[in-house]
Order: sequence, then structure tokens, then C-alpha cells
Amino acid sequence: MGKLLIVGSCAFDEIESPFGKTGKILGGAGTFISLAASRYDVDAAVISVVGEDFPQGYLDLLTDNGINIEGIEVVKGGKTFFWKGRYHNDLNSRDTLITELNTLGDFNPKVPEDYKDAEVVVLGNLHPLVQSSVLDQMNKKPKLVVLDTMNFWMDSALDDLKDIIARVDVITINDEEARQLTGEYSLVVAAKKIHEMGPKFVVIKKGEHGALLFEGEDIFFAPALPLEEVFDPTGAGDTFAGGFSGYIASTGDTSFENMKRAIIHGSNLASFCVEKFGTERMQDLTEKEITKRLQRFKKLTQFDIELN
Amino acid sequence: MGKLLIVGSCAFDEIESPFGKTGKILGGAGTFISLAASRYDVDAAVISVVGEDFPQGYLDLLTDNGINIEGIEVVKGGKTFFWKGRYHNDLNSRDTLITELNTLGDFNPKVPEDYKDAEVVVLGNLHPLVQSSVLDQMNKKPKLVVLDTMNFWMDSALDDLKDIIARVDVITINDEEARQLTGEYSLVVAAKKIHEMGPKFVVIKKGEHGALLFEGEDIFFAPALPLEEVFDPTGAGDTFAGGFSGYIASTGDTSFENMKRAIIHGSNLASFCVEKFGTERMQDLTEKEITKRLQRFKKLTQFDIELN
Repeated sequence: MGKLLIVGSCAFDEIESPFGKTGKILGGAGTFISLAASRYDVDAAVISVVGEDFPQGYLDLLTDNGINIEGIEVVKGGKTFFWKGRYHNDLNSRDTLITELNTLGDFNPKVPEDYKDAEVVVLGNLHPLVQSSVLDQMNKKPKLVVLDTMNFWMDSALDDLKDIIARVDVITINDEEARQLTGEYSLVVAAKKIHEMGPKFVVIKKGEHGALLFEGEDIFFAPALPLEEVFDPTGAGDTFAGGFSGYIASTGDTSFENMKRAIIHGSNLASFCVEKFGTERMQDLTEKEITKRLQRFKKLTQFDIELN
Repeated sequence: MGKLLIVGSCAFDEIESPFGKTGKILGGAGTFISLAASRYDVDAAVISVVGEDFPQGYLDLLTDNGINIEGIEVVKGGKTFFWKGRYHNDLNSRDTLITELNTLGDFNPKVPEDYKDAEVVVLGNLHPLVQSSVLDQMNKKPKLVVLDTMNFWMDSALDDLKDIIARVDVITINDEEARQLTGEYSLVVAAKKIHEMGPKFVVIKKGEHGALLFEGEDIFFAPALPLEEVFDPTGAGDTFAGGFSGYIASTGDTSFENMKRAIIHGSNLASFCVEKFGTERMQDLTEKEITKRLQRFKKLTQFDIELN
């Protein structure tokens, strides 16, 4: 059972989509990463910060899934990070309507003593300095550090972002962000440039068009599962990162072959996440459904061409 | 050796892209389909129409690749179909600058006697009535009829298009066109609706994002090979269709498993086509390069997850 440390927001989300509106519901990168990773044989802890308004039931959900929440600080009198967004008709783009940082604005992550030697660390999307501060607190070099980030930090904290990118083994980033970060349109060339910035493994997420894994000259591609209906894409990228990291932590194997499996596991869980609002689908998901859909991924992608 | 009949334009193209401009060069769906299909063990013939201005060298190129050109009518005093386009910087979209139908406007295809019993027929992008007329001339029901079409015919000849769609086994169509044809955003739902229109197999081409093959509930996905540089996308879709059909004709096997292989073969050839202007890369392509890149497709997509 591998030790996995996650840092990321636990938050309120409010979502408007062509399928309806939610009230304030559970969201946040830390939440989605944790719920996905907990599907694997891992000893996982999440570091985050919330306000007094964060329901005990949300914390219990994490605990019930075996996540250590010692590192979630509850700020007295504080309010929890809140994001409200509206998806366009094709669900591929969205507008942010409200962002209230609240307690997340002064987040000072504290790594629980028991997890300072975690083998795998996932740095969910946060200010790069917050991500760095987590790595600074480790008392043993992790086997694998996975970084997720977004264009917001490229615009507002590029130097800090480059510093943390230089310290990680895997970066997950979406296609437009990879292009913005490198100034290169070709994702193959963009991945090369990101390799040069530090990470041995570069994962480029293309949403409904799948994900690419690069390690030097080696490339692996995992499609997104073609779905009849995508309901709510919120948290899909975090669920992908959580499934990826949870699988790596549970196997303890960071070879390219195993990374490929991890990418498929992450894509598999993400394909469920989008089927309902927020974390709903991840909560009612059974092991049997997970295995059955992995079969579909195999059928979708595996072929048999004999070559000499 | 399977008998393969192809109908499609032989044309002059003139291309402007961020990489430069061509003069008038060899183009046309019939040309690209033929050059790709000729890579397989097939007895192929192409039906088309050109003007007296069409260089003998272009006809020789087809003959040299083993294509029967008996069915290419050369119209005395006529001019060959001409298309000029300009690609945008990302090469994913283009503007048509000039379309001169010329002899293609009165194209009345005549199937050579020897090919009226072809096992595989490829109906390249043309007016649906021209495509229908080819099928009408067959004296034996082909084992497989493959149709390629485009949005232009949805706008201008929808009823005729629906008639020919009802008569074919495989349709290849791009994602936006599948959405336009069915009014469905989800490609899974769109494919279902297209199945209901007739074709047993639906191939949805997503350009740089790969291609999906649907047969009822079965789905297969082939990515496009991630390339450092796409030079000129002209003819990639036709090359895909030609590789697909050539492989099927050479194997004589229309099972879903073999269709999957055919999709990979088509994607493989298309990945070469875009590396140079027009047909240039398809002309200098060696067998060794083709096999080597098929290996890359395997590495790109194949993984090993044990499931019970």
C-alpha cells in the first residue's frame, strides 16, 4: 500500500450547464483527486483549507473513503473557497461567473508528520508557491511528484510556476496551456520544451480528445471514452490526475509501461466523473463498473497487426 | 488480390500555407485514394474526368503505381477541375479561394467492363448522383461500398445524398459533418443516427484528433500520429479512405477486427501525406517507412491491463 500525499482545494462549486443548475455543492481539486485516488490500494492524505461553513458531511465523505484529512485546516470564522461557472452548449468551454478565494487566499499548507515520507505527491492546481511549500516540507525525496497547473498561473506567477515545474517528475497540463507555456503549436514540440523545463513525464490533456503521455521520444495516447452524453466536465481533469497517481502509488512502479496503465486508469475514472454533477457519480461508483469500463477502453483501442 | 474500384476527382490543386505556396500541382480525391490504395495487394482502377491540360506525367504516375486508368476520360478541349485554398496558421481550417469545376461539372462516370464485379468500391467525394451512377453500373453487388462525402452536398443535394448513403456499407465523414447531418453534438449519438440511414459501419474523422469506427455498439478509436510538424493537410482524408479500402480489398475480410486494422493502415498513410505538399510524400514513400510507422502506432496505443 503506497503512501500518497495530495494537496488541493476543497471547495464549494456552483454549476450552470445546459442540463440544469446546481446549488452550492462539493468541489475542489483536492476533493476530486482524493476521491479518485482512493479507488486504489493507497494510504492517502489530503492537505487543504476550508472555512467553518464547510459541512462536516463533506469531511466525512473523504474519511469514509479512507482519506486522512488531518491536513485539512478549518479556519474559524473563515469561509470556504467558492467557484461558480457556466458551461456553454458544447460543454467544451465555460465562463467563470464568481471566484471567491476566501480562506484559500492565505493557504499555508502543513504536511502531516506521517506523510512527510510519502512515495507519491500530487500537487493539485494552486499557487506555485503553495505547491513548492509542500515539497519543501518532505523529509524524504518522493519517488514521484505529479504537478497539475493552469493558465491562470502562467499569466500571474510565471517565474514561480517555472520553479515548481523544475522540481516535479510529471506535469499534467491541457493542450492550450501547453501551447501557451511554450509558444509552440505542435504538442510534440511543446512536450519537448516542457521536458527541458524539468519534468521527465509530460501529460497533455485534450479533454474529449483524450490525453498524451510523453517521456522523451516515447509517446502514448489514451482516448477519452466516447460518451452519449457529457453532463458536467467539472473535476474531470482532477479525477484523471487522481486515478493516475493513485494507480502509480498502489503499484509503486514508475516505468513507462506502468505509466501507460495509469493513464488509462485515470481516463477511465474521468469518464465516470462527467456523467453527473460534481462528485455525485464518483460517490456511487462501484468496482464492477470500473472494471467493466476498463474492458471498454481495451476494446476501443486494442488491435492486432502483425509486423516483422 | 482483391478488385478495387475508385471514383473521384483528378485535379489541379494550388495551396497556400504558412510553409509556402505551390503552383498548380496534382490533387483530387481520386488521385489520393488511388495512390494510397495502390500500397496494398489490389487490382485497382480509378474512374475520373480531366481536361486536355492534364499532364501525361500525372496519368503515368497512376499507371506506374499499378492503377488502371481506362476509366479516366480526357475531354478534348476541356479543362481539368481546379481548386485553390489557403490554410490558416494552425492548419486546422482553410479558405477556398478558387473552385473551377470545368470538366468535372459534366462528369458522367463509366465503369470499365473489367471492374463491374469489383469486390470493394470507393465513392470519393463527388455529387451524390455521380456516386449513385457508379453503383448502378455494377453487375454484381460489391462486398463493400465505401462512401466519402462532405458538407457541401448536405447544403446543396441533401435528398440525393441520403439516397446514396442508404446504399453503402461504410461512410467516412468528418466530425462537424456528422453533427450537421444528424443535428446531434455527441458523436456516439450521431453515429447511431447515421447507422439508421443505412451504413453498417460509420467512420468519423477528427483530423489531428484521430478517427472513430462504429458498428452498432462496437467502437474503435485510432489516434492521428502526433507529429512535430504538419505541412499540408490536403488529401489526408482521401489518403485515409484509400489506405482503409486498399487494406480491406487486399485482405477480403470485412469483419470488425479487420476494419480496425484497416483504420490503422489508413491513419498510418494519412500521417505521411501531411508531411509534404500535395502527393509528394506519397510518391517517395517506401515500404520500410510504412512498416516502421505502423510500429509507432502500436507503441502509441497498445497497453497491457489484465482484467478478470
